[in-house]
Amino acid sequence: MLPLMLAARAKIRLFVEQPLGTGQAIALSQPQAHYLGAVMRLRAGAEVALFNGRDGEWLARLVEIGKRRAEAECLAQSAPQLDPPDLWLLFAPIRKARTDFIVEKATELGAARILPVQTEFTNAERIRRDRLQAHAVEAAEQCGGTHVPDVTALAQLAQVLGDWPADRALIWCDEALAEDGSAPPPSALPPAPAAILIGPEGGFSPSERARLREGPGIQSLSLGPRILRADTAAVAALTLWQAARGDWR
Amino acid sequence: MLPLMLAARAKIRLFVEQPLGTGQAIALSQPQAHYLGAVMRLRAGAEVALFNGRDGEWLARLVEIGKRRAEAECLAQSAPQLDPPDLWLLFAPIRKARTDFIVEKATELGAARILPVQTEFTNAERIRRDRLQAHAVEAAEQCGGTHVPDVTALAQLAQVLGDWPADRALIWCDEALAEDGSAPPPSALPPAPAAILIGPEGGFSPSERARLREGPGIQSLSLGPRILRADTAAVAALTLWQAARGDWR
Repeated sequence: MLPLMLAARAKIRLFVEQPLGTGQAIALSQPQAHYLGAVMRLRAGAEVALFNGRDGEWLARLVEIGKRRAEAECLAQSAPQLDPPDLWLLFAPIRKARTDFIVEKATELGAARILPVQTEFTNAERIRRDRLQAHAVEAAEQCGGTHVPDVTALAQLAQVLGDWPADRALIWCDEALAEDGSAPPPSALPPAPAAILIGPEGGFSPSERARLREGPGIQSLSLGPRILRADTAAVAALTLWQAARGDWR
Repeated sequence: MLPLMLAARAKIRLFVEQPLGTGQAIALSQPQAHYLGAVMRLRAGAEVALFNGRDGEWLARLVEIGKRRAEAECLAQSAPQLDPPDLWLLFAPIRKARTDFIVEKATELGAARILPVQTEFTNAERIRRDRLQAHAVEAAEQCGGTHVPDVTALAQLAQVLGDWPADRALIWCDEALAEDGSAPPPSALPPAPAAILIGPEGGFSPSERARLREGPGIQSLSLGPRILRADTAAVAALTLWQAARGDWR
């Protein structure tokens, strides 16, 4: 809810649920009305950018702004809809601040979907899915993106692997590879549809490791000779995939 | 001061200043004594790992442990000294939490040196260099590394560029490239000695941008079609360089 003033497009960006199109009237939420009026001190006539994850980014003008409600009118599309490549991020939730961070970074880096998974060494029994989804919205507002990744409910890794779609490659970050130097290069990463799996800070259990090593269509990735925290590993792996196979090319 | 229990080498790692060698007695600091005794409840005879940034990692045994002091004796080297490639990270300090984060991540990812720089659009007038250096030590303790990057004093970017060493390539992350798609691929990144420069969240000023575009040996790098926060950009750029030119290969 605190968008950066972006250098390239210096305006406030807000995510809305409604369809966007020329002349469309958009009722903004109460927190958005508060943010625009009380925090940013905007008045009727001010321009903001709106996106809904489907219709690109639209320039809109505030036509009404009060304490509890605000309404904007769509003027023209200011950027096309840009969906990221079909890349999922699976991660084991850790301490709150670092979990929030992973969701923020995955959104910025262009993950299509974020799947918290419970591994044998994961501590978290539950997550606040609504909070994490709000973090993804906020990150999309800030990074100039027009896509908001879905954050799914916490699921058991074993079950997720059991239901794995046959056509989706799975890349997991194996800290053991850092030591033996046998990692394939990032250029060998599989194309979309793909998913990246980051383990918990305690690593994967021996049985999880065996399962991942044997699975068809499952590939490991090394992230260098130092042991990365889970949040660092998530950013690094998403970066390598996007540069090699994604929309950074 | 709160090292992870590493999966691969399950022991506490501490950074010390003294030389390490077989039979060497090492006096630990008061915070280290407190951490080992009061927090981790270790007693004399327990084993820890020590490193000093020069002599690799050593297995050591606690010979004395009290409230204010502790002493360890070096037994044997447990890992060789591994210095990262000669890569510097220059960044414009931002809000405290994100500045701490950049130092932590740069250490994990294997930056040799960390240089906070003040740009025209940087807000920070000063930094706590001692705090940032302590963060780098803590990150090295946690990531299993044996090198601790120096964190230098805050300097003006213009002055740093004025004194730039002729043999060191400079890579800067140019958000304008995200839009026009003209970025060179990561495989075109220059080898060590090199440096990565990340701008502040407000971006570089027009005159800084002109200077960076014209400078000899200065190369730009695109980090995809979304606008990354400065901390995300630091992790992504370090990752791409390490995978293409550094010690992740």
